[in-house]
Amino acid sequence: MDVKQKLKEMSAELDGPIRSYIEDEQPSNLIEATRQYPYAGGKRMRPSMVVAACRAVGGDASKAVPMAVAIEYIHNFTLIHDDLMDGDEMRRGMKTSHVVYGMPTAILAGDALFAKAIQIMGGLDIPPERMRKVLAITSKAVWDLARGQQMDVNNENADFITLDHYIETITLKTSVLFAAGAASGAIIGGASDDVVDAIQKYALSMGVAFQMYDDILGVYGDPAKTGKSAGNDIRKGKYTVMICHAHDTIKDRKVWDEFMSVFGKLDATDAEIETARRILKDCGSYDYAIGLADRYTNEAIDCLRCLKDSEDKEFMVELARFAMARDV
Amino acid sequence: MDVKQKLKEMSAELDGPIRSYIEDEQPSNLIEATRQYPYAGGKRMRPSMVVAACRAVGGDASKAVPMAVAIEYIHNFTLIHDDLMDGDEMRRGMKTSHVVYGMPTAILAGDALFAKAIQIMGGLDIPPERMRKVLAITSKAVWDLARGQQMDVNNENADFITLDHYIETITLKTSVLFAAGAASGAIIGGASDDVVDAIQKYALSMGVAFQMYDDILGVYGDPAKTGKSAGNDIRKGKYTVMICHAHDTIKDRKVWDEFMSVFGKLDATDAEIETARRILKDCGSYDYAIGLADRYTNEAIDCLRCLKDSEDKEFMVELARFAMARDV
Repeated sequence: MDVKQKLKEMSAELDGPIRSYIEDEQPSNLIEATRQYPYAGGKRMRPSMVVAACRAVGGDASKAVPMAVAIEYIHNFTLIHDDLMDGDEMRRGMKTSHVVYGMPTAILAGDALFAKAIQIMGGLDIPPERMRKVLAITSKAVWDLARGQQMDVNNENADFITLDHYIETITLKTSVLFAAGAASGAIIGGASDDVVDAIQKYALSMGVAFQMYDDILGVYGDPAKTGKSAGNDIRKGKYTVMICHAHDTIKDRKVWDEFMSVFGKLDATDAEIETARRILKDCGSYDYAIGLADRYTNEAIDCLRCLKDSEDKEFMVELARFAMARDV
Repeated sequence: MDVKQKLKEMSAELDGPIRSYIEDEQPSNLIEATRQYPYAGGKRMRPSMVVAACRAVGGDASKAVPMAVAIEYIHNFTLIHDDLMDGDEMRRGMKTSHVVYGMPTAILAGDALFAKAIQIMGGLDIPPERMRKVLAITSKAVWDLARGQQMDVNNENADFITLDHYIETITLKTSVLFAAGAASGAIIGGASDDVVDAIQKYALSMGVAFQMYDDILGVYGDPAKTGKSAGNDIRKGKYTVMICHAHDTIKDRKVWDEFMSVFGKLDATDAEIETARRILKDCGSYDYAIGLADRYTNEAIDCLRCLKDSEDKEFMVELARFAMARDV
């Protein structure tokens, strides 16, 4: 299966529904701002996973499509708010919400997208018990997302963070919404509690692997493909698996000091970034991070054993592998 | 009925539940920030109305208490975000969220409170059809609140706004959440659609009267009681019923120019504020605003005719009257 092609197809199918819930209303600047991120595309991994999980458990995908839209709106609501609080000015090649519309409108557009997602979920055509489960899992995910983003903010000012704390942060910041989406799809599709649990664990592990690989791309990715400047995360001083590993592994004080003189240095030269990259490779941190992300990917795929073979199961397996095989 | 006393009693009863849903978790700065506003008190008019509406239609109040908490969390989530975007530094005698915790945490605390409210609503012990109605009405209210707050932001930069636009703004910004709370209480209590509609209209009208009177206090209120500096809203150039009326009524260009020279002048002297106040009284704008707020109050009370007499109905009637009789 060509997962990138399949993802493109599913994304194209979801594009109509994603554009169908936000009507023309006043004030127009707010409405425009709520549409900006979800209409701009992106990989649409989260909504695709909702639909795939529903079908993979034998469910009717049409019942899951509104939930896919809701998950995408929630994802975009958090992106808008994160961009504002991180001070990021560009995303997916476009100016971020607060840059285009100003801070108040960016806050309100995020709030409004979350409200719209709840409105959509309240209208899902599913039995009441499934609705309760979907609401519980999704609202808890948003609560946890806020905790994860707060940890990320706190980590920036921390002296150092442990690998466990890093993994907890990215689990909350990234995985729980993947997991809520996948589990919701399975619940809507009528899966048993065991299968819902397995699918939720699949998405949690997959999300961790995805974020770990994202962090590797943030240091070693090709700027022409990622759209971010090379070694961006080194300049920002972003803690990742590699940094945690390097901290515990590098015994030579001179090497460590050389690395730390670049890490978090916003105006580091390309030559300095190259040195920092080399240090991370030489001490085995790059290989360690790849190996750990790989383990999470395999754990994710392992969780899907309970599912019968199908094109959607294959898509979910390949999506987990894709987390490690992408260059963007 | 002494409505202030009754409100105090209901508020005291709701205090325990309001403090019971946010557990100790990490990171502690976020958890603290989510608790700051809801734990600080306030009049608690919205949650009291949820419980009163439920009992007034013959429902079991214990089923409505979690919904009262959810409405209070949603109200506080919007206050936190509004304070940030309005740049307000004090509320209820305490420093606002973004001043205490910083901008990122204030955004996340608001998001998290909204998520918690949804989690609570998903766990309501009510029949599925009532749950769907409550979700629909509440999520639409939050969408509308964002629209109202955006209109308010836009109005600040507008040359002028009409009375109709002002009323639409305050309806969205203030009334829809009152209405969602009251209607939810009635739905949870098992009211028929007609009664739910009537109670929703009651709260919508009451909310408009409440906000209009708030605007009057913003110009004529006693600073010792409101906690705001005298004539604050004149200095801020805030459009209200009085300003819309004065705009349409004052024919003498000299008088109008004198008023406008003070309106929106942040460093206006107390003498200048006094002049602006006198102009609004002389042209009848103060009386007009009082009269209009009074009409909305009466319309609100009129909507409650469909309810049988009870202490809770009386509370709802008195609460509408209180909107006009308060000095804070």
